[in-house]
Amino acid sequence: MNSNIIVGSRIRLARNLKNQAFTNNTDLESANNVLTSVFNALSDISNFNLYKCKNLKSDVLEEMLEDHLISSELINNSDISGVAISADNTVSIMVNEEDHIREQCFLEGLNLKRAYDIISDIDQELGASLNFAYDDELGFLTACPTNVGTGLRASVMMFLPGITLTNNVQEMVNAVSSFGLCVRGAYGEGSSASGYLFQISNQFSLGKTEEEIVQLVESTALKICDLEIRARKLLLDNNKDLLTDEVLRAYGVLSNCYKISTSEATELLSKVKLGADIDLIKLKDCSVVSELLKNISPTKINKLSQKALTEIERDKFRAEYIGRVIKNNRIY
Amino acid sequence: MNSNIIVGSRIRLARNLKNQAFTNNTDLESANNVLTSVFNALSDISNFNLYKCKNLKSDVLEEMLEDHLISSELINNSDISGVAISADNTVSIMVNEEDHIREQCFLEGLNLKRAYDIISDIDQELGASLNFAYDDELGFLTACPTNVGTGLRASVMMFLPGITLTNNVQEMVNAVSSFGLCVRGAYGEGSSASGYLFQISNQFSLGKTEEEIVQLVESTALKICDLEIRARKLLLDNNKDLLTDEVLRAYGVLSNCYKISTSEATELLSKVKLGADIDLIKLKDCSVVSELLKNISPTKINKLSQKALTEIERDKFRAEYIGRVIKNNRIY
Repeated sequence: MNSNIIVGSRIRLARNLKNQAFTNNTDLESANNVLTSVFNALSDISNFNLYKCKNLKSDVLEEMLEDHLISSELINNSDISGVAISADNTVSIMVNEEDHIREQCFLEGLNLKRAYDIISDIDQELGASLNFAYDDELGFLTACPTNVGTGLRASVMMFLPGITLTNNVQEMVNAVSSFGLCVRGAYGEGSSASGYLFQISNQFSLGKTEEEIVQLVESTALKICDLEIRARKLLLDNNKDLLTDEVLRAYGVLSNCYKISTSEATELLSKVKLGADIDLIKLKDCSVVSELLKNISPTKINKLSQKALTEIERDKFRAEYIGRVIKNNRIY
Repeated sequence: MNSNIIVGSRIRLARNLKNQAFTNNTDLESANNVLTSVFNALSDISNFNLYKCKNLKSDVLEEMLEDHLISSELINNSDISGVAISADNTVSIMVNEEDHIREQCFLEGLNLKRAYDIISDIDQELGASLNFAYDDELGFLTACPTNVGTGLRASVMMFLPGITLTNNVQEMVNAVSSFGLCVRGAYGEGSSASGYLFQISNQFSLGKTEEEIVQLVESTALKICDLEIRARKLLLDNNKDLLTDEVLRAYGVLSNCYKISTSEATELLSKVKLGADIDLIKLKDCSVVSELLKNISPTKINKLSQKALTEIERDKFRAEYIGRVIKNNRIY
């Protein structure tokens, strides 16, 4: 059940080079020196693909953003920024984002500890060849005070339709805040929750060890998991007919519509995903729904069609693509 | 194309017996005498099933009403009223409705002349054994002055989604009125148009011969047909994408939903019917849509389920029934 609710885990470490101005306060030459140093160090330690952002087309950057491999801040800094991505897309290291270095590892399900081990190994190798800004009292120094200390952010992406549909989001946010954690939409700070997706992460990285932070986020995620299971049960007890109808209609529209926007498709696919999770709809293959959710953005649809489509062309292509994948998948 | 637009034709003759009080001004004994006389005359001339309304269960009456075989006024008069229905359900003769006798014939498509011939033959046979109230100057005498004269109402049921969706209903009503005809919803006076169905009929039955009235309604129906065809073309020219999407989504919801009301099902089925008419959706068998439209009322669903269902049970049964009939009918 957990894997239907905890979609993925992410560990991020923020690092900066000693005696170099922070990215927001640098000049082009210093920034390029940082980029060169980090790329050199990275090319020594592992099999990363290295990209300078200024060399990447905007649709490639957009797709990396959608896949959470880079941030919009990295795109904003594209004259000086770069990214290193592992062959399996589970590790990305951004250079000249808010901090000089942001090391990230993404794994499916609840997997924070393993993600931390992976990124920690890379961090140690990098630290051996680069000189990180570090204060014996404060820990790692970062551009933003909230990241000072461990420089660690541990986060889990959670699929919470039950909590959302029973109107318990605010209650969950309050509970999470009381543990010193915070809740965000799927695309980080300031983004709203789409498709019932929420990111739970630590708010501060000072005053706790890395292990304590990972442990706190993991245990909180498991508590929210319980809340979500209870909320889904409540929905089934009180609104089963309505919910079943909404799930089946969502499937009907997805498998037959002529055009559909990203946001409507996300909403409807998320409903079908919920329905499949709690047995309101039987699908031959549930994984296609999760796959579709990752592949219907404007960027992905353009890529799939191998054309730069207009919005209306894209909405038709998306409808046709979803219909082709999802229809005949329902078991009656 | 006409048969997709002109759904059916109806001819109705109003007759009263000489020297008998009109139904709205009668007593029980006189009314029963009328019923007996008419039933006796009917049993001589053709193979009708004769029903006294007071002997019929309310759901049977309700179903006859939905099938247009009787009127709600006949049900209101059920202590004294009756109906004779031909074996093929194309002829019904109501007794002690607003008038003593209302003779009706229903045929599919544009078929007013044939319907008139059928009802006229029956009327002559009835007139040979009953003494109709008739005035040499005015013609047949009726309870309501609008029916005096021929006592004839000729009407066609038309499916007008094009005119409706291009917001031209009022314009059509005005044009029809200027010919001395009127427009009503599917269930006669005061009923609203559901499923894009409209009834076009003559307003007065005095001052024109029967043949002239039939001719006028028929030629007007053909003119409206042209308007509807033009409106559908306009929709396709200006809103093809939107309309296609609505039609396909309607099909998707109908073939997958878990519960659905009569009115929503009527709306969605009518959209699919329109879509099939103008090739926005390809169906293996279009006739099932028209069949469903006749069979989804509460009364019909109760009958089909062989139970007296609650409203929510009926909405589920209806969804399941429609889904079973309509799904796998779309050709991609």
